[in-house]
Amino acid sequence: MLDQATDLDRVFQALADPGRRSMVERLSQGPASVSELGRPLAMSLAGVVQHVQVLEASGLIRSQKIGRTRTCSINPAALRSAESWISARRALWDRRLDRLGDYLTDPADSAETLPASASSEQ
Amino acid sequence: MLDQATDLDRVFQALADPGRRSMVERLSQGPASVSELGRPLAMSLAGVVQHVQVLEASGLIRSQKIGRTRTCSINPAALRSAESWISARRALWDRRLDRLGDYLTDPADSAETLPASASSEQ
Repeated sequence: MLDQATDLDRVFQALADPGRRSMVERLSQGPASVSELGRPLAMSLAGVVQHVQVLEASGLIRSQKIGRTRTCSINPAALRSAESWISARRALWDRRLDRLGDYLTDPADSAETLPASASSEQ
Repeated sequence: MLDQATDLDRVFQALADPGRRSMVERLSQGPASVSELGRPLAMSLAGVVQHVQVLEASGLIRSQKIGRTRTCSINPAALRSAESWISARRALWDRRLDRLGDYLTDPADSAETLPASASSEQ
């Protein structure tokens, strides 16, 4: 597992760029060289290398240099970490909606389980 | 649905800050006022308002001012959009690993389905 706070900062920051997301998309199909990652992007090699470095610092990808070629591959743990964070919040929200739905259908039955924050507070 | 590229940029950017993530976490339990969102954070009210604005611009939350109180609530569509993007890439990667696993178990059976990018390319 990743060290939560700082690493999630870096993972979400890394995913906040369309070029870097396209690299993650390509790598989710299998390893690729840096030049292969840059091919679909209208970008200098220096720009591509910089994005690869941001992705690697976030833990989303790993790279290895063999001879003159640096090959990148995805690190699924970092993707899972970001996915879990979002899923957990979304699930909390969905459960809250379910409880509200139960309450609206039958207030007498569900009064005890109504979330305290169902109405907005000052 | 959100307009994919730009909005995902903003959603991931908004999630790249621990203070903003703590606000999303609080809101996934139900609506809250701006001052309530700021309470657990060591931050000026101006700082809290700025984070709320970033979250609102990303589509992750909505807010409504009634009298002197601005109440925020989560917009689950934006959370789902980010979650789907990550899940789809992680699923691609998992499928690729499964196919490689099949190939390693029985190369003869699986030769046709081996992903072309199983080995790194130049």
